[in-house]
Amino acid sequence: MNALDRLIALFSKLPGIGKKSAGRITYHILDNPALAAALAKELSNLHQAVKRCGVCGAFTETDPCPICADPARDHSLICVIECAQDLRIIEEGREFNGVYHVLGGLIAPLEGVSPANLTIDKLIERIGKNNARELILALNPTVEGDTTALYIQKTLKGYPVEITRLASGMPVGGNIEYIDKLTLSRSFRGRVKI
Amino acid sequence: MNALDRLIALFSKLPGIGKKSAGRITYHILDNPALAAALAKELSNLHQAVKRCGVCGAFTETDPCPICADPARDHSLICVIECAQDLRIIEEGREFNGVYHVLGGLIAPLEGVSPANLTIDKLIERIGKNNARELILALNPTVEGDTTALYIQKTLKGYPVEITRLASGMPVGGNIEYIDKLTLSRSFRGRVKI
Repeated sequence: MNALDRLIALFSKLPGIGKKSAGRITYHILDNPALAAALAKELSNLHQAVKRCGVCGAFTETDPCPICADPARDHSLICVIECAQDLRIIEEGREFNGVYHVLGGLIAPLEGVSPANLTIDKLIERIGKNNARELILALNPTVEGDTTALYIQKTLKGYPVEITRLASGMPVGGNIEYIDKLTLSRSFRGRVKI
Repeated sequence: MNALDRLIALFSKLPGIGKKSAGRITYHILDNPALAAALAKELSNLHQAVKRCGVCGAFTETDPCPICADPARDHSLICVIECAQDLRIIEEGREFNGVYHVLGGLIAPLEGVSPANLTIDKLIERIGKNNARELILALNPTVEGDTTALYIQKTLKGYPVEITRLASGMPVGGNIEYIDKLTLSRSFRGRVKI
């Protein structure tokens, strides 16, 4: 396989990019040496620069991350999310001023994800440390999301913290990543106690 | 801007990739250090490895390219294409056994592309060198493609070479890059003398 074909094959491995798109992208890059160099540099740099925040688990270049280190954010309000990319979507909505907690997945026995694989122990620690008054479960409205929300609710029974979940407004079976900002904002405002 | 945002911004510059897709791709890469390393390596290597063929103008790692260097191909049959990526699409159709000539664009006075910007002089040279019997103009069925085909036809008047153009079968206003193989194959078979 030659250099062009190898690059096309690599681009085809990225989510949402098929063989034809990968070809278009590769030829576009062939015409833009500066873009190729910039991409190569950032890709080489990425895993050195970006780590997990030791507090919330988000991707960050500083530890703790800028959100966990920000005294202006409400640390008693913790938004529990499945994965780090959900943080970006919620931050873009500019609705939420608390902090985050990345679970690292959702409970899915068939895929071998049990509660022990998630950062629930750490979440319980943070409730005490942060003197948390509310956990907002911003989990996808899917079977796995519901199961995980229920598990967290049961596990935290007796803890002096209110547990809420993002309101409907998100289409059931949908994915937080693709929600428009308005719908997301409504879901934050209309969150219900569980 | 942090490393994540910089990479997302770069991916957004690629054709067909919006901001959300760029985010998805970047997080996918965050979870795949090996893919990041492979992409960085191929992107760094691309412009050193891939050159233009001195004969036909296609992208290649050897000069002349494997097609121009292949004695089994019919060098008297030259397929004239707008740009190098069209070669890949036509080769995937496995219909054509001649050689290629990359024009490097189509005549478009409003965009400042005149016949002098194209490799038409070189094409005329190759007609003699290759003892060419036929030029197949595989140009997009657009105004620019029609203009270019007409210009080549007029310029080569008197040369002992047959000039044909890919048959209709391609939707007018369409783009060679997105054609299915069957339609492309039909266009090759039904090419008409102009």
